[in-house]
Amino acid sequence: MSKLVIVGTVAFDAIETPFGKTDKILGGAATFIGLAASQFKVDSAIVSIVGGDFPKKYLELLESKNINTSGIEVVENGKTFFWSGRYHNDMNSRDTLITELNVLAEFNPVVPSNFKDAEIVMLGNLHPLTQMSVLDQMTSTPKLVILDTMNFWMDCALDDLHKVMKRIDVITINDEEARQLTGEYSLVVAARKIHSMGPKFVVIKKGEHGALLFHNDNVFYAPALPLEEVFDPTGAGDTFAGGFAGYIARTGDTSFENMKNAVIYGSTLASFCVEKFGTLRMEQLESQEVHQRLQQFKDLTQFEIELS
Amino acid sequence: MSKLVIVGTVAFDAIETPFGKTDKILGGAATFIGLAASQFKVDSAIVSIVGGDFPKKYLELLESKNINTSGIEVVENGKTFFWSGRYHNDMNSRDTLITELNVLAEFNPVVPSNFKDAEIVMLGNLHPLTQMSVLDQMTSTPKLVILDTMNFWMDCALDDLHKVMKRIDVITINDEEARQLTGEYSLVVAARKIHSMGPKFVVIKKGEHGALLFHNDNVFYAPALPLEEVFDPTGAGDTFAGGFAGYIARTGDTSFENMKNAVIYGSTLASFCVEKFGTLRMEQLESQEVHQRLQQFKDLTQFEIELS
Repeated sequence: MSKLVIVGTVAFDAIETPFGKTDKILGGAATFIGLAASQFKVDSAIVSIVGGDFPKKYLELLESKNINTSGIEVVENGKTFFWSGRYHNDMNSRDTLITELNVLAEFNPVVPSNFKDAEIVMLGNLHPLTQMSVLDQMTSTPKLVILDTMNFWMDCALDDLHKVMKRIDVITINDEEARQLTGEYSLVVAARKIHSMGPKFVVIKKGEHGALLFHNDNVFYAPALPLEEVFDPTGAGDTFAGGFAGYIARTGDTSFENMKNAVIYGSTLASFCVEKFGTLRMEQLESQEVHQRLQQFKDLTQFEIELS
Repeated sequence: MSKLVIVGTVAFDAIETPFGKTDKILGGAATFIGLAASQFKVDSAIVSIVGGDFPKKYLELLESKNINTSGIEVVENGKTFFWSGRYHNDMNSRDTLITELNVLAEFNPVVPSNFKDAEIVMLGNLHPLTQMSVLDQMTSTPKLVILDTMNFWMDCALDDLHKVMKRIDVITINDEEARQLTGEYSLVVAARKIHSMGPKFVVIKKGEHGALLFHNDNVFYAPALPLEEVFDPTGAGDTFAGGFAGYIARTGDTSFENMKNAVIYGSTLASFCVEKFGTLRMEQLESQEVHQRLQQFKDLTQFEIELS
């Protein structure tokens, strides 16, 4: 089993969907990634920053999932990063209502010393220079570095994004962002261009339409589970990435064949994440439930046509 | 092997895409369905109508694929149905430029006598009453009736559509149309509602995002092959349906397990259809190419996670 370092936001979210709304609840990319990866009982650490207003019980929750929180800096006189958004009726688009960076504006990630030799590094969505500073702190070359990013950094920090992309192995990016980054509509062509920017593996997330994994001329497709109802999509992409990273950390196998399984696990965990507000579903998720849903993914996708 | 009756348009299309434009070329739902089904070397017949302007060589082309054309009425002093459309840059949406019904306005389908006992009936997109009149002509109850339809009939012939839906086994419908027909956004809920309207099997086509097959509580997903370039999407949905119907006719097996394979074949054939204008690619398609592409679908979707 490999050690996993996760850098990303630990935050408050306030979410409004057609089904209801929340007050400030636990959120943040690193939170969702960590909770998903914890399903694989890996040794993980979150590197992040919160304010004095961040409830101790949330840190205890993470610790209870075997997530090391010593890399989460607490700025006692600061406020935790806060995001608020409202989803439209189709749940596929949303408006950001509030973004308060707060302590995140001064975030200098510090990797705990006992995780500086972690084999797997998951760089959650953050400024590319912040992501890079985590790589600079590693004392040995990680076996696999996974990066998530978003259109915001393409708009305002594209050069830095290109720099960090040269140092990673896997990028996870959504379809619209892949198109923006490359200027290509075809995801096959876009993936090839992104590959040429650095990452050997390109994962394109298509939300309710699943995810594609590209590696050289190989492509693998993991559908999203067709759901009766998406209650709250917040964190689904990060949960996908966390499931991917956690499975790789658990198995220590970075082959394309094993990454197929990793994206299936990512899709599986994401299908739970959207069932309740915020992190609620992921906090309670039992391994037996994951096992059953994996069987549903098999039923959904596996077929028997004999080819000679 | 079962006999297959196909009713639908045989037409002229004029197509404009970002890659170029055509004059009037061979088109029509039944044409695409028939060409796709012909890959399975089934005994099929097209029931349709054309004008005196319809080139004999097109009928010969269909006959050369073992498609019986005796049910295609030729109205010597009439003109063939003509559709013209222009695709947008993303190839996912299009504007209809011209629709000339011509002889189609007077279409009364007549099933050839030697196909009135066909086991498989494919009702291509037409007025629901025209589709129904084909069912009324069958001398024995078909083993499987497949119906394709579109939003136009929901707008202007909804009652008739509901009537024919009670007499079919499989409906193929695209995602937006499924939502329109049911008023439900979730495709899982929409499929359940459509199921309650009659069809035991519901196939929801999602274009570049693949297709879903629903039957009771079972669901199966066939992705679309990720393509570098979609040259012309015209006929892809009909080709999918034709591949589905042809495979069922070939195997004679209407179980859910076998329908999984049928939707995979449908997706496989549709991935060829979009490579050239109109029917060109389907006219030239060799079984060896189909075989190779099926292997690509396996590589794309099959994974090995052992579950106890």
